[in-house]
Amino acid sequence: MPHRPVITFLSDYGLADEFVGVCHGVIARICPQARVIDLTHGVPRHDIRAGAVILEQALGYMPAGVHLAVVDPGVGGPRRAVALELADRRLLVGPDNGLLAPAADAGGGVVNAVEIGGSRFALQPTSATFHGRDVFAPVAAALAAGAELAESGDEIDPLSLSTLPLAPPRRAGGALIVTVLHVDGFGNATLGATIDDLDGLGESLTLTPAGGGSQPATRGRTFADVGPGELIVYEDSTRRLAVAVAHGDAGARLGLAAGGELRIATR
Amino acid sequence: MPHRPVITFLSDYGLADEFVGVCHGVIARICPQARVIDLTHGVPRHDIRAGAVILEQALGYMPAGVHLAVVDPGVGGPRRAVALELADRRLLVGPDNGLLAPAADAGGGVVNAVEIGGSRFALQPTSATFHGRDVFAPVAAALAAGAELAESGDEIDPLSLSTLPLAPPRRAGGALIVTVLHVDGFGNATLGATIDDLDGLGESLTLTPAGGGSQPATRGRTFADVGPGELIVYEDSTRRLAVAVAHGDAGARLGLAAGGELRIATR
Amino acid sequence: MPHRPVITFLSDYGLADEFVGVCHGVIARICPQARVIDLTHGVPRHDIRAGAVILEQALGYMPAGVHLAVVDPGVGGPRRAVALELADRRLLVGPDNGLLAPAADAGGGVVNAVEIGGSRFALQPTSATFHGRDVFAPVAAALAAGAELAESGDEIDPLSLSTLPLAPPRRAGGALIVTVLHVDGFGNATLGATIDDLDGLGESLTLTPAGGGSQPATRGRTFADVGPGELIVYEDSTRRLAVAVAHGDAGARLGLAAGGELRIATR
Repeated sequence: MPHRPVITFLSDYGLADEFVGVCHGVIARICPQARVIDLTHGVPRHDIRAGAVILEQALGYMPAGVHLAVVDPGVGGPRRAVALELADRRLLVGPDNGLLAPAADAGGGVVNAVEIGGSRFALQPTSATFHGRDVFAPVAAALAAGAELAESGDEIDPLSLSTLPLAPPRRAGGALIVTVLHVDGFGNATLGATIDDLDGLGESLTLTPAGGGSQPATRGRTFADVGPGELIVYEDSTRRLAVAVAHGDAGARLGLAAGGELRIATR
Repeated sequence: MPHRPVITFLSDYGLADEFVGVCHGVIARICPQARVIDLTHGVPRHDIRAGAVILEQALGYMPAGVHLAVVDPGVGGPRRAVALELADRRLLVGPDNGLLAPAADAGGGVVNAVEIGGSRFALQPTSATFHGRDVFAPVAAALAAGAELAESGDEIDPLSLSTLPLAPPRRAGGALIVTVLHVDGFGNATLGATIDDLDGLGESLTLTPAGGGSQPATRGRTFADVGPGELIVYEDSTRRLAVAVAHGDAGARLGLAAGGELRIATR
Repeated sequence: MPHRPVITFLSDYGLADEFVGVCHGVIARICPQARVIDLTHGVPRHDIRAGAVILEQALGYMPAGVHLAVVDPGVGGPRRAVALELADRRLLVGPDNGLLAPAADAGGGVVNAVEIGGSRFALQPTSATFHGRDVFAPVAAALAAGAELAESGDEIDPLSLSTLPLAPPRRAGGALIVTVLHVDGFGNATLGATIDDLDGLGESLTLTPAGGGSQPATRGRTFADVGPGELIVYEDSTRRLAVAVAHGDAGARLGLAAGGELRIATR
């Protein structure tokens, strides 16, 4: 751990309630010297895939530290709570439901894993419904304060951890079929593909969402490459393929939602 | 005060505007060494009761320090601005409209109180409409920086402070009638009762909101105790009785709003 | 730079996505000792004028430091990215589209300016769509860490910087015609005028928005000067003229939007 440890924090708690603030308080009591960076608390509620994609995309921009992530529709049920040490030395803390899997892969894979549901660092009594406060935040804070991973829970086999299947892009009759991973607050859609997957389709494209209604789009590099209101297919700032409307909302225009498919063909 | 003092901050300012950020700036100028924890700024506008319940529930998870709270529909009017020292040494700063009362009680009661409307620490000129920036934040920051309570305003009698009447649960024909204290962003409703108030009602319950329309519910411990979409009555993470829908929104389902009543009976 | 440098951060990124959190991470990697104050991220999307007004109003309450502001509809196009040193020693970082102009004026004007689009501090590769992360945040962090302005980009003439024309108030037939600069989350509207511009109009006023429909209002000092639901014209906490409804929403009542005109006449 560096002199002033960093904890990053991602959740679907939103900011309308005190959930995030309470977790900050719990962390500050256990590890007052930690600096907490709120990655986002706007993950769509219970959307494990969106949280996983955002966490993986963002982690490379974060200082190494303890990375707390809570999107946890199964709280109180049998899903495990875990803390993971990655090959790149980052520590991940969260539910074992796939949320951490892409970030763990990006960090070189899990080298040590512990189950923390009954951690000695958990708050007592541990509530059944708010493990962010009672389990995840205290364990993250203890790790940031210098506790060893092995102290924080019971060792488990990294191979037993949940994964998160993301459908790969596929070709169908010359067109590219991709999955929408996430639609952000501006309506820009991140797709489960890279710019290389567009090879051979040219610059003038037709987009057809699962709900139908084809629309013309242009392959470009920046929003300035198309006119206001026009659709652009581009490599986004996370190196994934993406669709946007210049000065507009592509998610609304095309009716895109996370998990849906989009067909990209030559116009 | 500890080496690095803590200020927690709760308000109904929301995050759409710069109000919260400006208060952070004011604090940073007066007490640069303070760490500010945003408890929440999503208290429903002007809802003193919701703010009071959230503040009281959350304070036990916060490091001891200065606790700034601003839900202040009477700003600019005759309501007093106050700073309070509690028996547990915490300091509360905010309007004297009941907002601070439950938290003060939970902290063992008020041992010293001052009126800070004309505090020497207030910004000059003091606006009529933004006392968070001009009165409460600067006084909180000065206290965090080590000022004595007596320096920050004029002593007042703690017995003169406003209280916040919360209707206690009551029995009517075998059923339990409770007040809804707060509905959070997930639609989970905190009730003005404890799990013990359910004694004798069994596990299978019927819930009837003020607006009518009874629905079956189950008494449980965790969301996993009921099926998705089913109503559960449980002890929430703040030790109050609560109603939720597993993977759903109980507030919307039952039409619950803060201040309304809910009837809980044996099914 | 002080011992613990301050970076303030304003944007239209919102908090639903990870954009703000990612910028925080970028800053923490480059200047771990910086304290970042989020001024607001709720500027209406692409509303350069609202961002400029908020930045100028808020800056006087912020500790001096590096002031990062990103409302950037032209990202990826020809608009310049700049870092500015003001006469009062504050540093501003953001797009050269007028966003920084009122704050620069308030700080005594620009004494040194550099173009940072190709800054040595920018992240590589620099994305076409997220200059907050790749250009503005890293340059702000480098400046906070002690880099010289001249190191961060290529010197440009301060006179070449974009300005932001704000329509001055004007008189028409005894009435005052003002521009709405910004409507905040409570529905309070900041106007492009000062309280002195009301001279001679008296206390009883009639307000007529561009969309028609006159309503009575009272000139007052605080919301408590009028009854609940009544319109008040007052000097707001930023010393600008403003319109509000006590315990209500003036923006909705009058149909006000930023950029629109409002006619204020004697009743």
